Amino acid sequence: MKANTIRIGVLGCGTVGSSVIRAIIGNGKTLKQKTRIEFSVIRVCDRDKKKAGLFPDIYTPLDTDITDSPDIDIVVELIGGVEHAFKAVKRAIKNGKSVVTANKALISERGVELFRLAAENGVHVGFEASVAGAIPVIKAIRESFIGNRLSKMMGILNGTTNYILTSMSLNSSTFSQAFLQARKLGYAEADATLDITGLDTAHKLSILSTLAFGRHVYWKDIPVEGIEKIDAMDIAFTREFGYRIKLLAVAQKTGRQVDIRVHPALLPETHPLSTVEGVYNAVYIEGDLAGKSLLYGEGAGGNAAGSAVISDIVDIGKKLFHNNIPNESSVYQDEKAVMVPMSEIFTRYYCRFTALDKPGVLSRIADILGRNSISIASVIQKEERPEKAVPILMLTHRAKEESLQKAVGAIDRLNVIKNPTVIIRLAE
Amino acid sequence: MKANTIRIGVLGCGTVGSSVIRAIIGNGKTLKQKTRIEFSVIRVCDRDKKKAGLFPDIYTPLDTDITDSPDIDIVVELIGGVEHAFKAVKRAIKNGKSVVTANKALISERGVELFRLAAENGVHVGFEASVAGAIPVIKAIRESFIGNRLSKMMGILNGTTNYILTSMSLNSSTFSQAFLQARKLGYAEADATLDITGLDTAHKLSILSTLAFGRHVYWKDIPVEGIEKIDAMDIAFTREFGYRIKLLAVAQKTGRQVDIRVHPALLPETHPLSTVEGVYNAVYIEGDLAGKSLLYGEGAGGNAAGSAVISDIVDIGKKLFHNNIPNESSVYQDEKAVMVPMSEIFTRYYCRFTALDKPGVLSRIADILGRNSISIASVIQKEERPEKAVPILMLTHRAKEESLQKAVGAIDRLNVIKNPTVIIRLAE
Repeated sequence: MKANTIRIGVLGCGTVGSSVIRAIIGNGKTLKQKTRIEFSVIRVCDRDKKKAGLFPDIYTPLDTDITDSPDIDIVVELIGGVEHAFKAVKRAIKNGKSVVTANKALISERGVELFRLAAENGVHVGFEASVAGAIPVIKAIRESFIGNRLSKMMGILNGTTNYILTSMSLNSSTFSQAFLQARKLGYAEADATLDITGLDTAHKLSILSTLAFGRHVYWKDIPVEGIEKIDAMDIAFTREFGYRIKLLAVAQKTGRQVDIRVHPALLPETHPLSTVEGVYNAVYIEGDLAGKSLLYGEGAGGNAAGSAVISDIVDIGKKLFHNNIPNESSVYQDEKAVMVPMSEIFTRYYCRFTALDKPGVLSRIADILGRNSISIASVIQKEERPEKAVPILMLTHRAKEESLQKAVGAIDRLNVIKNPTVIIRLAE
Repeated sequence: MKANTIRIGVLGCGTVGSSVIRAIIGNGKTLKQKTRIEFSVIRVCDRDKKKAGLFPDIYTPLDTDITDSPDIDIVVELIGGVEHAFKAVKRAIKNGKSVVTANKALISERGVELFRLAAENGVHVGFEASVAGAIPVIKAIRESFIGNRLSKMMGILNGTTNYILTSMSLNSSTFSQAFLQARKLGYAEADATLDITGLDTAHKLSILSTLAFGRHVYWKDIPVEGIEKIDAMDIAFTREFGYRIKLLAVAQKTGRQVDIRVHPALLPETHPLSTVEGVYNAVYIEGDLAGKSLLYGEGAGGNAAGSAVISDIVDIGKKLFHNNIPNESSVYQDEKAVMVPMSEIFTRYYCRFTALDKPGVLSRIADILGRNSISIASVIQKEERPEKAVPILMLTHRAKEESLQKAVGAIDRLNVIKNPTVIIRLAE
């Protein structure tokens, strides 16, 4: 390995590959500051020679320029599919390189072989990006919840089908209307069979449940049903019962057995997974110590997967570089942040004025707000106690904190105002 | 360090301490299997000698039996408060021990000193449990999102105040009623000043924003407002506008400045943080690659904090033990899981029968279900097309998959049934 540099080769220059390379170039300085390691992408391969133009200085059309190169430490596999990817990864591992992959089919179908090979060759394999995009679910299971006996997981692991079901639910569209819309927006491939039939979800669930329960779960053993049979009517009627329909990955322990399956399921509308809409993914996990947790985020797309790939690259980079791992306290900076003074924030406000219920009160309040450049979005005045103090509830448009405080100060000095005004900011 | 054992000393034997010790004893075998390291709690200290009875074999009343002992590798600080905890941790670090702490006030107020001291002494400090209990938010920021430029975080970081606000919202209780209820259920201490005023949230936010933005954010610099002024009326009226009120921790970058604050805030009811109820915590994070993520879980309680403490112990244990870090692929088991056959699962079902709209059809369906031990929870029959096929929608109580399939098979053979019945399972 070269001095303090981790040299990376990327196989496959599609959306994920480009995102990873751009982020490592763009954020390399920050990464070095945080890890004291330099991360450098020194080669990228794609069989499609048109991709040469994207990163011309480091492009090669040949896999072996990466898998066989003595100057590469980590190979990032973003080819997709099983056979070709397996051969390339195997070759890289045999040549002593660690591997990071976003390929759920590869890990699900050939993971056991690859991990055994990696152990024999003393290298590492990272696969955070293979399940649920940017959501750190693999790290959570392997590291954060390592002290727990996990009893149950439920996941929405496929963005395409969740988009279709959400769209059928919110817009009362039919399956085919929703599917066409998903294709139009780029959320579904022309051939979305793996998504629709639930096989993509089964691949991902086999990875998560193998990690969670410590025994191998073969994706072919998982009972799978897709969403083809769901009708707009089912969605509408189950809504009446208070449920949402999701394509759900379920894995739970029942004694010494594991109950693992993928199928459309009704979730109570109060369940946190019910609110996961569109192309988002989420995983719900129950453990004996951690209790109930939910991890939610962007499950697809080049940048989301890129985020997870870089996380793996850095984890492996630290292992490769620091034979004697140094203290990592430097992540906790002592250089002071430059704070925005509270008076200078801009936001929307809720104000509760307590005023005598007399004619002209609201116009006096509005006048003071106007003179301080604060415009009103809506007002409710409850006239419950004529001639007594009543609440006036108001939402403003965006305003500067300083102006709002100044205006409310002036309003509170009016003799028709009976209590100090309550101000609550809106979160944006 | 002894052979392949990490020896742990615990300072403070309250709910978190007891949970950590019990889990390490109970799950120690699994931990060893996953890490090839033996984790052993060899001493626990509490000034309250009544605690001696809990773990009599390893109890000591003296801090220094842990901080100064040559046979301890990791000191777990669960004393709470700042001054006493700081002294004990400082002493442990100077004696070459790594430290794991759940103490947000300690990290927020004296973190910089402690981390500098740890670096000088070549030891590690873990503090995942200091923010949001079991939720792996510190690991997510430091490791999972390391490739991202984080632009925004919003968090519900205090269970006591979230319980009070949820209770005011759902039960229309006043602040004092909700507070008394929280005390009764053990969700609020007798003196909940730090919670109610927002200072506890500010401590936690200073830790998260220092990690996220790479500059030190002092908690004393954070503008803080508590929930004392929130009236049941505000909650009711803002609900009319489509908002929920939460005690929110906000941290966002605005150019080179950071806008960081703690105050009650209105959140649109469609925002994922709006649905975080009761004593749960959640953190919403936006990054340039990962996009929008939400981590949600149990923010308080001995077990939840214990889960995070053990995660830190294992991370540090790996660093201490593996000077040459081995490949971790063994976490991916090749021993096959024992699957529950699909026919043997028990769950509730939604069935959509398509039947001729004739008298007696429903009773024939119900009869077959009954003979297969399946009981009906509710039925909707839409009589839209007399004499034609109409949908009958049904929810069942819990039943065995095999019985349900057998019953539906028999029902589908009835000549009044026009299409194969659609079955969707309920998630439980």
